[in-house]
Amino acid sequence: MAEKRYLFTPGPTPVPPQVLEAMSRPIIHHRSSDFREILGRCLDRLHEVYRTQGDILIYTASGTGGMESAVSNLAGPGDRVVVVSAGFFGERWAAMARNFGCEVAEVAYDWGEAPAAEDVSARLRELGGAKVVFLTHSETSTGVVADVQSLAAAAKDAGALVVVDAVSSLGAVPLETDAWRIDCVISGSQKALMTPPGLATVSVSPDAWAAVDEGAPSRFYFDWTQTHERQEQFDPAFTPAVSIVVGLDVALGLLLDEGLEQAFERHARLGRACRAGAKAMGLELFSPDDDRSAVVTAIHSPEAIDSGELVQTLRDRQGIVLAPGQGPLKGKIFRIGHIGYYDVFDITTALAGVELVLGELGADIERGAAITAALEAFEHTRV
Amino acid sequence: MAEKRYLFTPGPTPVPPQVLEAMSRPIIHHRSSDFREILGRCLDRLHEVYRTQGDILIYTASGTGGMESAVSNLAGPGDRVVVVSAGFFGERWAAMARNFGCEVAEVAYDWGEAPAAEDVSARLRELGGAKVVFLTHSETSTGVVADVQSLAAAAKDAGALVVVDAVSSLGAVPLETDAWRIDCVISGSQKALMTPPGLATVSVSPDAWAAVDEGAPSRFYFDWTQTHERQEQFDPAFTPAVSIVVGLDVALGLLLDEGLEQAFERHARLGRACRAGAKAMGLELFSPDDDRSAVVTAIHSPEAIDSGELVQTLRDRQGIVLAPGQGPLKGKIFRIGHIGYYDVFDITTALAGVELVLGELGADIERGAAITAALEAFEHTRV
Repeated sequence: MAEKRYLFTPGPTPVPPQVLEAMSRPIIHHRSSDFREILGRCLDRLHEVYRTQGDILIYTASGTGGMESAVSNLAGPGDRVVVVSAGFFGERWAAMARNFGCEVAEVAYDWGEAPAAEDVSARLRELGGAKVVFLTHSETSTGVVADVQSLAAAAKDAGALVVVDAVSSLGAVPLETDAWRIDCVISGSQKALMTPPGLATVSVSPDAWAAVDEGAPSRFYFDWTQTHERQEQFDPAFTPAVSIVVGLDVALGLLLDEGLEQAFERHARLGRACRAGAKAMGLELFSPDDDRSAVVTAIHSPEAIDSGELVQTLRDRQGIVLAPGQGPLKGKIFRIGHIGYYDVFDITTALAGVELVLGELGADIERGAAITAALEAFEHTRV
Repeated sequence: MAEKRYLFTPGPTPVPPQVLEAMSRPIIHHRSSDFREILGRCLDRLHEVYRTQGDILIYTASGTGGMESAVSNLAGPGDRVVVVSAGFFGERWAAMARNFGCEVAEVAYDWGEAPAAEDVSARLRELGGAKVVFLTHSETSTGVVADVQSLAAAAKDAGALVVVDAVSSLGAVPLETDAWRIDCVISGSQKALMTPPGLATVSVSPDAWAAVDEGAPSRFYFDWTQTHERQEQFDPAFTPAVSIVVGLDVALGLLLDEGLEQAFERHARLGRACRAGAKAMGLELFSPDDDRSAVVTAIHSPEAIDSGELVQTLRDRQGIVLAPGQGPLKGKIFRIGHIGYYDVFDITTALAGVELVLGELGADIERGAAITAALEAFEHTRV
């Protein structure tokens, strides 16, 4: 029998069968009334999940494409922007803003640290303000979920626009686009939104619209104004990934049927279960041991075991797909994603696989304790 | 019973069940060995279809995103470029190049005209050359398939780089990337390649690589160098639309199993059948009545009947989806696409629907002649 596969990465994530089924129907035209109905409902559902009255734009692109749309529509050559960075995706904001000619000031932390609002305030005072502050909600490379509410308040109070990468967090942990005064939130279809990769979603506040330099060159595909005008008429400027929009609509329906607050609680409990299991095995956590860490759990590989080898062996021998460490954490940590279409038995499967393979690789770990600890933490703790 | 739908637009096009089935399997990770095998095979197959030894890059984007990658990697502020334009997509090249600050010279024709190589040569002589010449192979808005071989030769002989929009033509009509010395060919998944929309494919010749300004700002997502380096390592820079790559791989396998030459002949015969049927009904063709017009047939709406109304009525009453006229042809023409997963009974269905609805709308057309003429033209003519 072909080996079963278990996908436990923080994106792409497993896609519910209802979503796969909807996506396997005959393709429809993106300017047909059939699609109009689906796109309209999908946008309504996105507004609920984003908790915004602002505009939401859908791009056929990875999350990075959505991020680029924020940089290229809001900032340009010579504009001073601040990037708060504590991992791989924070550094991507900085690289991208530099590519677009911005004057980039960083509030940089070691990978794995949690950014603090007072550092952002201090930096903005020192600089005399900035046009945009770019934040990362869930830093997928480290498992840290930042306190975006306080970071956004610090930036907004200093007169900056606030842009948040919520690619892996939207739908998994609380995010209040309007209540937290965030001008632009970027997400992607393939994380907590339970859909295959291919779509980026971008919210745009009235303040963000007011800051768009309409005459600026160097953007076409990611131009917000054109995308918005055409989307409003249900006449997309460029052919969207129709089947993924169809899937996203169904997935958002599932998420809203569960209820956003219920989904947040489930994710917090999944994070607790994962951390409890890893600790019971005798492993050391890399991500913070707090309830906010509900997207992905980063765990130190035991001494003398390269985390890349662990991930590779799990994949090759057991069909279990985890994520290795990136950048300075390569070889040192491995990451178990737990967002989207995910329940506690996905956690126990991931932990059982880790336990099995670490044992085979000669690590000195506690056998048999992780599963019980994880189930216990999932069942008997309420957020 | 829910109404059946018949999709006869020049993109998205119907997706074969084998492709839908492959796409409905559980999602895999884009850095797993499972995906590595699929991506590698998909790229090999793309090389066969493109007929190139050059590099091929895959972007998660519409075809327009692939076009933007060519503009932003090959040209920048102040660069002189020539755009050959005779319809909607030619004009898109010009708009995009202007957005990126290029000095754009156009060789512009009325919509529906076929560009001539001598005009390109003359313009390049007059300008003293240009960095890039942008061409459109199949101008989907008019049904005209340009003689890209002679246009490319004219541009290349004048020392320019040649970039071709082959979004709706690749796999339907002959295109020889290397033999015709084309530096960059852009295509999309959702046309003759029989896959849902979401991927753009871009070939890059050695001459094109040599012309890339590595230091130029204003691109990140569509940067060729980063995309290429990471794709070579099977470690995509940004999460690709995994399920659409899986589908594209299967679809390209189907195309190559049929044989490229056989597919070209089938498309030429489909074009003949469509034109013969439309003429037998008494309608006037807008696209040229020649064998090159094998992608989409543009047809004048009868006097006093708005083509948009015809298309809308066909969609609403019969579930048949054709394309209306765009730009200056709005209301005047309608278009029947015949690319990809398409056979002669799709042509007869489209024609039967047009005949029925035109009759209902009061047009004076010949009833009952179109189907026979189409079948006859398809069966009894060989290219």
